[in-house]
Amino acid sequence: MALFVSRVPCAAAGVFTQNRVVGAPVIVSRARVPAAGVRAVIINSGNSNACTGDRGIEDARSMTAQLAERLNTDPDAVLVCSTGVIGHFLPMDKVSRGIQEAFGKLGSGTENLESAARGIMTTDTVPKIACRRLDIAGRTVTITGVAKGAAMIAPNMATMLSVVMTDAQVTPEFADRVLRQAVGQSFNRISVDGHTSTSDTVLLLANGAAAVDIVGDNDAETRFQASLREVCEELARKIIRDAEGAGHFVTVDVQGLPTEEDARRVAKAVCESPLVKTAVAGNDPNWGRIVSAAGYAGIPFQEQDLSLIVNGVLLYESGRPIAFDEAKVSGSMKQGEVHIQLKFRLGGAAVTFWTCDLTAEYVRLNADYTT
Amino acid sequence: MALFVSRVPCAAAGVFTQNRVVGAPVIVSRARVPAAGVRAVIINSGNSNACTGDRGIEDARSMTAQLAERLNTDPDAVLVCSTGVIGHFLPMDKVSRGIQEAFGKLGSGTENLESAARGIMTTDTVPKIACRRLDIAGRTVTITGVAKGAAMIAPNMATMLSVVMTDAQVTPEFADRVLRQAVGQSFNRISVDGHTSTSDTVLLLANGAAAVDIVGDNDAETRFQASLREVCEELARKIIRDAEGAGHFVTVDVQGLPTEEDARRVAKAVCESPLVKTAVAGNDPNWGRIVSAAGYAGIPFQEQDLSLIVNGVLLYESGRPIAFDEAKVSGSMKQGEVHIQLKFRLGGAAVTFWTCDLTAEYVRLNADYTT
Repeated sequence: MALFVSRVPCAAAGVFTQNRVVGAPVIVSRARVPAAGVRAVIINSGNSNACTGDRGIEDARSMTAQLAERLNTDPDAVLVCSTGVIGHFLPMDKVSRGIQEAFGKLGSGTENLESAARGIMTTDTVPKIACRRLDIAGRTVTITGVAKGAAMIAPNMATMLSVVMTDAQVTPEFADRVLRQAVGQSFNRISVDGHTSTSDTVLLLANGAAAVDIVGDNDAETRFQASLREVCEELARKIIRDAEGAGHFVTVDVQGLPTEEDARRVAKAVCESPLVKTAVAGNDPNWGRIVSAAGYAGIPFQEQDLSLIVNGVLLYESGRPIAFDEAKVSGSMKQGEVHIQLKFRLGGAAVTFWTCDLTAEYVRLNADYTT
Repeated sequence: MALFVSRVPCAAAGVFTQNRVVGAPVIVSRARVPAAGVRAVIINSGNSNACTGDRGIEDARSMTAQLAERLNTDPDAVLVCSTGVIGHFLPMDKVSRGIQEAFGKLGSGTENLESAARGIMTTDTVPKIACRRLDIAGRTVTITGVAKGAAMIAPNMATMLSVVMTDAQVTPEFADRVLRQAVGQSFNRISVDGHTSTSDTVLLLANGAAAVDIVGDNDAETRFQASLREVCEELARKIIRDAEGAGHFVTVDVQGLPTEEDARRVAKAVCESPLVKTAVAGNDPNWGRIVSAAGYAGIPFQEQDLSLIVNGVLLYESGRPIAFDEAKVSGSMKQGEVHIQLKFRLGGAAVTFWTCDLTAEYVRLNADYTT
């Protein structure tokens, strides 16, 4: 159980899973943002309160009401997230005791932040925190975020939760806009297996405590947005670094397509191919799998429009295979970092995605979770 | 190397991969069907002759020309398929010797058919053959097919090749139409990992030797089409039974959606979720993974529209979890057969897909293929 509480009301925004089957906390929180008066977020791990029908929604509302009562505020001022197994009702007695305990331990500072970041972990092996400070008009604005998720593939897909907090002064509309943009360039560019969670949630809370007004100042808006994107990207990359069973961190750069959506689809196809991911696990520069994954992404191209570079070595140029030193490329992959560059010559759009390999350990971790 | 030769010209049709990156043999064969005068198919395994540029196309054409010369026919009357690693040029000396050898061994009968079915195997562990006989107007028509593919995921995606032969008399246009329909209801309903091959090919050759005219006789058309579908479905199921590393055969029935395409998308999402497939590997009735995979298939529905049955046991009814005996359902999964039924109440369309589980052995087999 983790609580994120602001002493003063926050402008808040949220980005939620696109799954048609959503957890009760997503239904409850989604209806409460964007908003100006948010005070807190309550998160439990171990049970995602998803696929639990009306009773699940009542339970999620009850969680927010219990915390709201202690904060002397309205339940609508509290957002809620749950992560863990799908299809089980929350043990509400235990939840109530957890709220009481966690409330008693509320505090500020790095130690408490790390404690909260640990509190929302499931199969994560490390807490995930990112922070940026920026000077605006002589004052310091801080953006701090925490996230959980052993990639998109934490057991039972209660994968990705993140809370980003800032002391900047912004409007809910601004918070909503910049959060959507930042998530689109960070969390929405990671994938382990393409299994979209029922619980994915990223929240942004801005309480204005730094007394720095962002909205209306073009330069401040741009810099705040850039820093928010950096915080989200760092958290997203930390999720991939901690992916279940993973041994490699993979960066997929796609460039030279007509639109960013085209590039996104190619990157996603490559990132989600089990054949690409098992080849990476085996340090195998089996580039045919990468090129053929690009080929089924649904984007029209000719083979001669495409070149492929892996860890700096050209393997495929304008539709033709290039002789290369397989042992050398395989050796560079053994370092645990794989950089895949797909270069098209059909336009100016580019995108970067991050993923991991697919290992026997991933299978082991996911083959026996509920039974 | 395998050769399929008809003494008389065949009406021939083909269905090929939708991948944008296609093997040279796909480019060559695709341009030659549907056609009326096809005499033979030549197939090699071990090298897919894909991503090999103009030289690859020359090599594929040369293969057909070499066989055509021996058959005293035009190269256009010979179709070609290759399966194996991507991105390597064919060893044409070896290929020419192979054609000579295989030509010398040509014969008819079950033994030769099995020998050809073995000849096109890569990591398949068993040859895949299916046959149907039907009586039409007092004569017997035979439809015999062979296929290769250790699921959609044979190493390097040179996955799925099939040749179906019949002695019925049909037109190329009829062959093309019924083959497309049969493939849509069989090979296009299996999936191991969604990695569409560069080489997928299904060919139908009809040489008319049974002296039974199918086209124009409504009853004969319908029965021929049904038998062709059965042959293709049996071959498709055999591919899943022999899937790399797989321990479970999974049938996914989706029903009650507005269109077949809706049902197809839901079935595909469930069949391609690594989380569903690892749960099956562990005999884990982790139904939240199945429901949530349906949720991201891109089909609009409400949770209360959906119920889920696994191996005959209702786990989720109209959006609510149902208490069930986990040990009993897990025990039934241990038999190696898993039947997943997703029942919607939004329409009359239904579809059946087949898939397998995702095991550590699959990862091992695919982690180190080229190096």
